[in-house]
Amino acid sequence: MTDLPMVVPAQELPPRVRIHEVGARDGLQNEKATVPTEVKAEFIRRLAAAGLTTIEATSFVHPKWVPQLADAEALFPQISGIEGVDLPVLVPNERGLDRALELGARRIAVFGSATETFSQKNLNRSVAESLTMFEPVIARAKAGKVHVRGYLSMCFGDPWEGAVPVHQVVGVAKALLDLGCDELSLGDTIGVATPGHVQALLAALNEAGVPTDALGVHFHDTYGQALSNTLAALQHGVTTVDASAGGLGGCPYAKSATGNLATEDLVWMLDGLGIETGVDLAELTATSVWLAEQLGRPSPSRTVRALSHQE
Amino acid sequence: MTDLPMVVPAQELPPRVRIHEVGARDGLQNEKATVPTEVKAEFIRRLAAAGLTTIEATSFVHPKWVPQLADAEALFPQISGIEGVDLPVLVPNERGLDRALELGARRIAVFGSATETFSQKNLNRSVAESLTMFEPVIARAKAGKVHVRGYLSMCFGDPWEGAVPVHQVVGVAKALLDLGCDELSLGDTIGVATPGHVQALLAALNEAGVPTDALGVHFHDTYGQALSNTLAALQHGVTTVDASAGGLGGCPYAKSATGNLATEDLVWMLDGLGIETGVDLAELTATSVWLAEQLGRPSPSRTVRALSHQE
Repeated sequence: MTDLPMVVPAQELPPRVRIHEVGARDGLQNEKATVPTEVKAEFIRRLAAAGLTTIEATSFVHPKWVPQLADAEALFPQISGIEGVDLPVLVPNERGLDRALELGARRIAVFGSATETFSQKNLNRSVAESLTMFEPVIARAKAGKVHVRGYLSMCFGDPWEGAVPVHQVVGVAKALLDLGCDELSLGDTIGVATPGHVQALLAALNEAGVPTDALGVHFHDTYGQALSNTLAALQHGVTTVDASAGGLGGCPYAKSATGNLATEDLVWMLDGLGIETGVDLAELTATSVWLAEQLGRPSPSRTVRALSHQE
Repeated sequence: MTDLPMVVPAQELPPRVRIHEVGARDGLQNEKATVPTEVKAEFIRRLAAAGLTTIEATSFVHPKWVPQLADAEALFPQISGIEGVDLPVLVPNERGLDRALELGARRIAVFGSATETFSQKNLNRSVAESLTMFEPVIARAKAGKVHVRGYLSMCFGDPWEGAVPVHQVVGVAKALLDLGCDELSLGDTIGVATPGHVQALLAALNEAGVPTDALGVHFHDTYGQALSNTLAALQHGVTTVDASAGGLGGCPYAKSATGNLATEDLVWMLDGLGIETGVDLAELTATSVWLAEQLGRPSPSRTVRALSHQE
C-alpha cells in the first residue's frame, strides 16, 4: 500500500499548495484538558519535521478567554528557533500584540467575523468595533514588518443568522485588507459551505479587486464537505489551505462546528493530484497518532485512522 | 439553520443526480449482528419515503457467504410493492438469478473485480472465470428484460496489488458491457482514489467507447476522499452516484475499506449545488438515526451527526 494514492494530476490545478497548519492553536485551544507546554512544543517540532512550513503556534488572547493557550509566553521561546518554519500567532488587540512582539513573533493573525452575531459572541463587539480594534494592531505590525493574516469567520453560514450573503463577506474582507492584512483566511466556521458557494465567494472577491493569491480557505468538516470545498477552491486558483493535523479542533462558540479539515486527508488528496506540499504523510500521521495518545483519544481524521489501522 | 446549505449552483454540473442507495444491502451485509427482516423492510420503506428511487434491496449470494442477507426470500415480497422505486438485488450466478426471478426482481447486479487478487478472494475465481460465470446470468436477465448493473471493484487501488492501472479497469469494464450490462458502477473499494485519477479513468472509458451515462461511481470514505471524488465525477458528467444511508457498511474482504460515502453527506453537497435528487435530507437523516438506534451505535455520517446533534 506504500505506492498509494496513485499520482494522477488533474487539469487546471495549482502545482503547489501551502498548508497553513492550525492544529497547535485552533486544535489545542478546544481541548477540555490543558495540554502541557512541553507536549505542545514537541507537537510543533514534529509538525515541522513532517514538512509543514506554516504552523500557527499559539494565541495571545487573554488567558481568561482561552486558558488552554495561557502558556504562550512559555511556549513560544521553545519553538521560535525551528528553522525554515513560519510561526504565526493569534493576536486580538494591542495588548496581545505587545506580548507577541516582545517574544519576537514575525507573523500575527487577527480574527474578524463576517456576521454581527458571531462578532458579538466571539469578540463582544460589532464588526465595525472589531475593525476599530484591529486598526492599530495591524498598523503597528506592518510598521514592524510583521506579516498579518486576517481570519474571517462565518463566511458561508452562521448558526444564528443562517446563510451569509456573499456581498456581506466581501465588505468585511475588503475592510480587513484595507487595514493592511497581507492575506485573508475565509472561514466556513460551521462547515455548511458547498462547492458552488465557495467559487461564488471567491469570484465575488476577485470582482471586488481582491486577488486570489491574497486568499486562503479554512473549511470545517461538520457536514463532511471540507475536502470537496477545498477542491473547488483549488480549481479557482487558491493555493493556501488551512488544515489541522489529525482533524483536531473546531470552534467552541459555534454549535456543530466540530472538525477542522484534517491535514492528513488534505495531503492524501494533494499527493494523489501530484500537488506539492513538502509534507511527508507517513511522518505527519505518526505525529497525529502520537498526539492522540497524549490526548487520550483517537484522531477523527479518516486518513490517520486508515493508515494507523485504528478502525 | 433550516435555510442551509445555501443553494449556489456551480458551472458545468448536471442538473439532476440519481442516487443508487446501497445501505440496505452493502451496509447491512457488513453488520456483525443479523438485522431482523422486519427492520430491513421498514428501513427500505423509510428510504423510499425519503425520496430515494433506486434502493438496492438484498443479495442472492449463497447464505453461507453472506448470512446477514440470508432472508432475501422473506424480505423481498415485503417491499416489492413499494411504488415508484427500483429495487435491484445482487446476483452472483445462475442459482442466485433463479431465486431473484422467482420473486419478481426486475433489476439485478453482478459484481466483478478489476484485479485478479480480489477476484480470487471475493469470488474464488479469476477475472476471466468470473466473466464466464456472469455470461449466462446476464444473458438470461436481458432475455427477460431485467435491467443489469455490473459492479466493478478495486478500480483505483487494491490492498494486495497496489495502484490499479487504468487500462486494466477499462478491459474488465468493456467485457462486462459486452456481456450486456446496462450500467457499470466503478468501485473505489478501499477508498484510495483522488480526483485526477477519477477523471482519468472516466476519460479512458470514454475513449474506449463507453458513454458516461452508462457509468456510476461508488466511492468509499476510508481516507475521507469520497465526496471530493464524487465532485470530480460530476464535473466529468457522471449522474449516477452510489451512497449508503448513514454511511453504513464497507467491504469485509478489503482491509481498511470502512465507510461507504454517506448518502446524507452527498445530499448536503448536491442540495447546496442546486442539483436535484428528489431526496428530503431531514427525512433521510431521521431514517438513519432510527436505524442507528436499531443497530445500537451512532451513524458515522458527519451530516447525520451534525443534523441530529450527536457530537
